[in-house]
Amino acid sequence: MDIATIIGLVLGCIVIVGTIILGGAPQMFFDAPSIVVVIIGAISATFTAFPLANILGLPKVVMKTIFAKPTSVDAILSQLVNFAEVARRDGILALENHVEDIKDPLLIQGIQMAVDGTDPELIEAIMEADLENMIGRHETSKAILDGFGKYAPAFGMIGTLIGLVTMLGDMSDPSGIGAGMAVALLTTLYGAIVANVVFCPLADKLALRSNEEILAKTIVIKGVISIQSGDNPRVVEQKLKTFLPPSARGSGEDELAQAA
Amino acid sequence: MDIATIIGLVLGCIVIVGTIILGGAPQMFFDAPSIVVVIIGAISATFTAFPLANILGLPKVVMKTIFAKPTSVDAILSQLVNFAEVARRDGILALENHVEDIKDPLLIQGIQMAVDGTDPELIEAIMEADLENMIGRHETSKAILDGFGKYAPAFGMIGTLIGLVTMLGDMSDPSGIGAGMAVALLTTLYGAIVANVVFCPLADKLALRSNEEILAKTIVIKGVISIQSGDNPRVVEQKLKTFLPPSARGSGEDELAQAA
Amino acid sequence: MDIATIIGLVLGCIVIVGTIILGGAPQMFFDAPSIVVVIIGAISATFTAFPLANILGLPKVVMKTIFAKPTSVDAILSQLVNFAEVARRDGILALENHVEDIKDPLLIQGIQMAVDGTDPELIEAIMEADLENMIGRHETSKAILDGFGKYAPAFGMIGTLIGLVTMLGDMSDPSGIGAGMAVALLTTLYGAIVANVVFCPLADKLALRSNEEILAKTIVIKGVISIQSGDNPRVVEQKLKTFLPPSARGSGEDELAQAA
Amino acid sequence: MDIATIIGLVLGCIVIVGTIILGGAPQMFFDAPSIVVVIIGAISATFTAFPLANILGLPKVVMKTIFAKPTSVDAILSQLVNFAEVARRDGILALENHVEDIKDPLLIQGIQMAVDGTDPELIEAIMEADLENMIGRHETSKAILDGFGKYAPAFGMIGTLIGLVTMLGDMSDPSGIGAGMAVALLTTLYGAIVANVVFCPLADKLALRSNEEILAKTIVIKGVISIQSGDNPRVVEQKLKTFLPPSARGSGEDELAQAA
Amino acid sequence: MDIATIIGLVLGCIVIVGTIILGGAPQMFFDAPSIVVVIIGAISATFTAFPLANILGLPKVVMKTIFAKPTSVDAILSQLVNFAEVARRDGILALENHVEDIKDPLLIQGIQMAVDGTDPELIEAIMEADLENMIGRHETSKAILDGFGKYAPAFGMIGTLIGLVTMLGDMSDPSGIGAGMAVALLTTLYGAIVANVVFCPLADKLALRSNEEILAKTIVIKGVISIQSGDNPRVVEQKLKTFLPPSARGSGEDELAQAA
Repeated sequence: MDIATIIGLVLGCIVIVGTIILGGAPQMFFDAPSIVVVIIGAISATFTAFPLANILGLPKVVMKTIFAKPTSVDAILSQLVNFAEVARRDGILALENHVEDIKDPLLIQGIQMAVDGTDPELIEAIMEADLENMIGRHETSKAILDGFGKYAPAFGMIGTLIGLVTMLGDMSDPSGIGAGMAVALLTTLYGAIVANVVFCPLADKLALRSNEEILAKTIVIKGVISIQSGDNPRVVEQKLKTFLPPSARGSGEDELAQAA
Repeated sequence: MDIATIIGLVLGCIVIVGTIILGGAPQMFFDAPSIVVVIIGAISATFTAFPLANILGLPKVVMKTIFAKPTSVDAILSQLVNFAEVARRDGILALENHVEDIKDPLLIQGIQMAVDGTDPELIEAIMEADLENMIGRHETSKAILDGFGKYAPAFGMIGTLIGLVTMLGDMSDPSGIGAGMAVALLTTLYGAIVANVVFCPLADKLALRSNEEILAKTIVIKGVISIQSGDNPRVVEQKLKTFLPPSARGSGEDELAQAA
Repeated sequence: MDIATIIGLVLGCIVIVGTIILGGAPQMFFDAPSIVVVIIGAISATFTAFPLANILGLPKVVMKTIFAKPTSVDAILSQLVNFAEVARRDGILALENHVEDIKDPLLIQGIQMAVDGTDPELIEAIMEADLENMIGRHETSKAILDGFGKYAPAFGMIGTLIGLVTMLGDMSDPSGIGAGMAVALLTTLYGAIVANVVFCPLADKLALRSNEEILAKTIVIKGVISIQSGDNPRVVEQKLKTFLPPSARGSGEDELAQAA
Repeated sequence: MDIATIIGLVLGCIVIVGTIILGGAPQMFFDAPSIVVVIIGAISATFTAFPLANILGLPKVVMKTIFAKPTSVDAILSQLVNFAEVARRDGILALENHVEDIKDPLLIQGIQMAVDGTDPELIEAIMEADLENMIGRHETSKAILDGFGKYAPAFGMIGTLIGLVTMLGDMSDPSGIGAGMAVALLTTLYGAIVANVVFCPLADKLALRSNEEILAKTIVIKGVISIQSGDNPRVVEQKLKTFLPPSARGSGEDELAQAA
Repeated sequence: MDIATIIGLVLGCIVIVGTIILGGAPQMFFDAPSIVVVIIGAISATFTAFPLANILGLPKVVMKTIFAKPTSVDAILSQLVNFAEVARRDGILALENHVEDIKDPLLIQGIQMAVDGTDPELIEAIMEADLENMIGRHETSKAILDGFGKYAPAFGMIGTLIGLVTMLGDMSDPSGIGAGMAVALLTTLYGAIVANVVFCPLADKLALRSNEEILAKTIVIKGVISIQSGDNPRVVEQKLKTFLPPSARGSGEDELAQAA
């Protein structure tokens, strides 16, 4: 679970709500039609702009971005090294018995293909295609979040313009001008809050989480290819460790040097 | 038919019209000259900026973006595998009888050239040129939609400035100031609506639909080349399936492994 | 002559002038000093930003963008195929007699060098350098038009700020405030009109026209190289036709297939 | 210590505070709740947008950007040339005794691997991976600073909108309108100051410092590889000096020419 | 001397000053504290954002951009062809006597290295590194000018906000409101003038001048390498002329063809 995202979202709401309450007139800041203009307006633009499947899949992607455990690259790496040892010792077919221990679907697929004796180039092409596909899905999800972050303020401005025109059209009661303008400004406020508290930051976070998953999947692909080509488990480890940050590589340097 | 686009456009209009009606003075929001400034102004800038042929072709492209059935990549793939089997069994010339079953013009052209014994490199060059050409057309169409999304708000601002100058020039009747300003703001409102409800989201959708068509046409080109080079139908299928998302590849993995 | 550009520019002016006249006070919208601030201001920034030679050459480039006949790629292609036939039949030296029929200076230069027996790599390098040069010139011209489209509104804003400060400094006569502000807004209006009716759209059109010329010149270069290397006229035609859109290739497909 | 950064930050604060004091009412410019909205709001968006580890590491990165001594590329170069001489004279194992003199962790790691006889390609891969990693960390740090520079003004606008709505909702006391609006504008002012005095410029500086470190680390990597491959110390020097600016290369040209 | 830059800067100042004088109250437009906020504010942000050395070197770069004679590519080319003839006739060592005639430091360095018999690859690497270095310096200079063009308006806005808050806090004397607001707007005006008359256009000009210098230095590098490899002077000329625009190549085409 990504605690930072939740802290950020909660803190953002507290700051906004707190400021409104401190202002002394919180009841002025809730206006159902204004909320509808901004939220439904942004949703309508998003429907026009993106494919239905991607929009419907967005909540799942967002939930995963917020709540999913970060992929443990270390665990993947040690599993791959472990598999390399099994393949070295008992032959690649012996990996079939370990497939059920794997959780990562891409690794299952890769090991299965390696066990089945699929051509290495084809394995790499298929696994790379899966990776490309995931990248494409994440990019569309990020584009939808960015779209919300762009269209919510736009519909906020549209709502404010509608409110201003209505207000300006009837200035018979000067005492109502202030209140009318306050209501007109609410949609701009909602749009700015929705964009800057939720959607724009979430889009950034999604992009960074996507990079982590790309790294993990790249390690899986390189690992499966290395295992299938019968590499020494030490060599597999060396090759894959170059993808890790120095801190995560830990005391592995000595082992690397000894193995080489 | 892309139901999301239609839902989005209808929902956007309902939200805007609903908000205006709720405001209690819908008659204030219709002003023919203001509509003319924004729409004809944006059209004039688009004419200056883009070639006539592309502008005249835009409605067709937009209609296709909204209403066209998404290309079935699966159907294309199975037809190509089917053709590969025919070519393997009866020779490539036997494909001539199947040309009339094909709907995709690029596939017709490719199979026709393969049957005629055209040089493979030339086939690929010609088909790639067609693909490049389609990409260019789509990019220009997207640029025109983006142009509308940029120039409509710009002419909205020009209209508002003209309205403000007119209003400020005659402030003898203070009671008319509010109404004058309301009318002046209408063009800005129209520009924002036209851009954010229709053109900017449509430009995004067009780009995504274009990517789907590029994928389909890439599969056709790779397929024709693979068929002409006499590839085993299984190999053709394997090669082309790497272009599909994992979900679409379904249970094909087993077949792939067996064939390899 | 690019009729769309002229329609766009005329339509844009009609819309703006029509809206101003409909407002009922057209005399308010003409203010010589305001025009000077925006136009001369934008020109001054352009002089500071770009080389003198490119600025002085801009009117010619713009006139060419608006009035020049679109390059007929078909005509170039058939001329090149024709030359390939002559070179095949009578030897490359026979082309010398046809040089005077050519209008395109790049083609004259290329054929001349081929007739003189210049080294093919040098021919290609020189012709490519000419193409690069034209691309550079067009890019600078587009940058100047974009510069006008950016600096005209900037000087419009500067003019409005100067007007506002002047007006705010002397509010002894409240009845003059409206008029003062109207005049102040004029420069912003002029800047927006100049940018959105003329310069920004023209910059887009220039970029698209440049792409057409690049295509035509690329065909000429490939054609001259192909002719010099003694290619069969059919092969020359095939190679060059891959640069054309499918519609322009017409019934050529059959010929291509027969020749291959 | 980067004196320019400190001069810039101090000068920026002096200018802002001086202008406020000159205005004659400095007490008006301090409003705790407004500061909270902008600062905590920007922090909340940053938490939502970036990983916790990177945010917590930001102060250290910023301190390093401001106070760290610039890396002396000259010192690194002469140390590498020195090591090359030792390796030439006494064999590469002799470098082990010099490892403790090294301060740069990347150089320690590289020399250690070279001494241990690690495969050159693996050394390069591991060192390049470290470099990539540092680049990634710096890019995320810059993105966080840019994020502050974007979200601080956004929450400034949100604060101003909340203040305006509150003020407009209660206009019973016209004399309070001015003061209410002044307070409302404070968050926009804070957002602009925070972004333009601190975060946007710091993000630029961080990017430039990162480029310097990349250069230094690239020289280290090339140097270690060159030393391990047994290059003549003169050749090592020549190769590495091409990374230096001409001024820093000093009178080295003569030596270069003599050695070649 | 680049006359266009000076015309642009002078014309820009005349337009601004003229408009202010025409407004009838020029004394209102000079306010020392406002000038300080914008200029010193922008300088402070620039110090925070860029290295001290580059900022201190900026005036020299700007002077060179405005006043330096454009590099004569023709002169460089004929000097290189001349050197190629000397090297051909009297051997490369004979060039040593001509080094003192050279003004371009890069050419001096290159010829010196060629005379000293430095390895051609090393010569190219060192000269390319010098070129890269110059490009880097110019890019940083352009970034600083762009920074001024961005931070001057930002501090203009900060100054205006400070002025507005001060004014709104004391509305006891309504007659002072106009004057207070006029002064508040001055910083925004200064920021817009500084950015649009001076820094943004100068940044563009610097980029274009940099491109010219890159072209000249590229010709020098190619020329030195070509001379060292003992190329025929005609071939040197041919190779280098492909870098020139067609107009500058003049009647050279005939010579080229004869030599080939």
